[in-house]
Amino acid sequence: MLLYNSQVSGNCYKVRLLFAHLGIAYEREELSVVDRSNRPAVLGGLNPALRVPTLVLDDGRVLAESNAIIHYFAQGTEYLPEDRFEQAKVLQWLFFEQYDHEPYIANVRFWVRFSTSPPPAQEIEARRAGGYRALDALERALTERDFLVGDRYTIADIALYAYTHVANEGDFGLDGYPAIGAWLARVARQRGYVPISA
Amino acid sequence: MLLYNSQVSGNCYKVRLLFAHLGIAYEREELSVVDRSNRPAVLGGLNPALRVPTLVLDDGRVLAESNAIIHYFAQGTEYLPEDRFEQAKVLQWLFFEQYDHEPYIANVRFWVRFSTSPPPAQEIEARRAGGYRALDALERALTERDFLVGDRYTIADIALYAYTHVANEGDFGLDGYPAIGAWLARVARQRGYVPISA
Repeated sequence: MLLYNSQVSGNCYKVRLLFAHLGIAYEREELSVVDRSNRPAVLGGLNPALRVPTLVLDDGRVLAESNAIIHYFAQGTEYLPEDRFEQAKVLQWLFFEQYDHEPYIANVRFWVRFSTSPPPAQEIEARRAGGYRALDALERALTERDFLVGDRYTIADIALYAYTHVANEGDFGLDGYPAIGAWLARVARQRGYVPISA
Repeated sequence: MLLYNSQVSGNCYKVRLLFAHLGIAYEREELSVVDRSNRPAVLGGLNPALRVPTLVLDDGRVLAESNAIIHYFAQGTEYLPEDRFEQAKVLQWLFFEQYDHEPYIANVRFWVRFSTSPPPAQEIEARRAGGYRALDALERALTERDFLVGDRYTIADIALYAYTHVANEGDFGLDGYPAIGAWLARVARQRGYVPISA
């Protein structure tokens, strides 16, 4: 398989982390998160959103959206619960991640750490407030349990871990979030875990 | 079941539309999309994002995120494909909807039509540009096929239909989108279809 990848992207990391857990082999083609001028040429026809990760399967079929990719490959493995309602709760967290978490935490991290033309500070701080709201919700959930769904590590944890564990790169402070801190350490102890740099 | 609902919300409409197709009975509790001051009291403890739709099942368990809810109830019905890869493509479109479509088209519609304190016009127009990018991607996909995944109507169509069919209420012009126009009419002809007002 071929993964159109950006190494620093938390969305791509979700896929790489699950593939590491599952021992799935694949090739990578690296795309820049800063200079996106070649996206239409490379990803046009593959992904309507022109984003990474985009995954080309061995038979040539193409799958996009990080959370759709990890959901596809987690099926039938220990990383997706067997119970139908728990599966729905996993999806609830995946949609929460893409709507309430990633647009705030990932965007602020990008502006602070990678962008060559970040928006005005006022706009960054407004976005940062949304990131803290998402962290508040995550902290509340993790105060009651070790992992987000059921009693074990699933793709819900992988999806939320991806940008939470690098939130410090967007100057988010996690000192006030002890349950998140313990959970981050718990995820990093899972068998087959690899860091975002891998 | 009890659906915490806002009648004008496209996200809530997705659930109501699927339930109408499936003949599923439920009760509703209406929440305002403008005055959200009672959200923590009503939805706190039920939904970390404090948003509608939030669905309380008959056994008291709670499910949130519109696309997670319709995915849960579509399983085993004609509204979710049986093929595993097609199921993944449905999820790809559901995540596209929540990341690239809804935040632009739904927010602009809200500001234009419902909000008592919309942002400056410049911000609305910047957001509108993102909405047209999503419509461009949708038009390209629907130029090649009648429905978004496979050859039949699925929850991918329901999810994208919800805010596309009321984009005009956000002053989006759909004249340049003939494939979307034909698809909107196709969706409205499906058995059991109900309008957003129902």
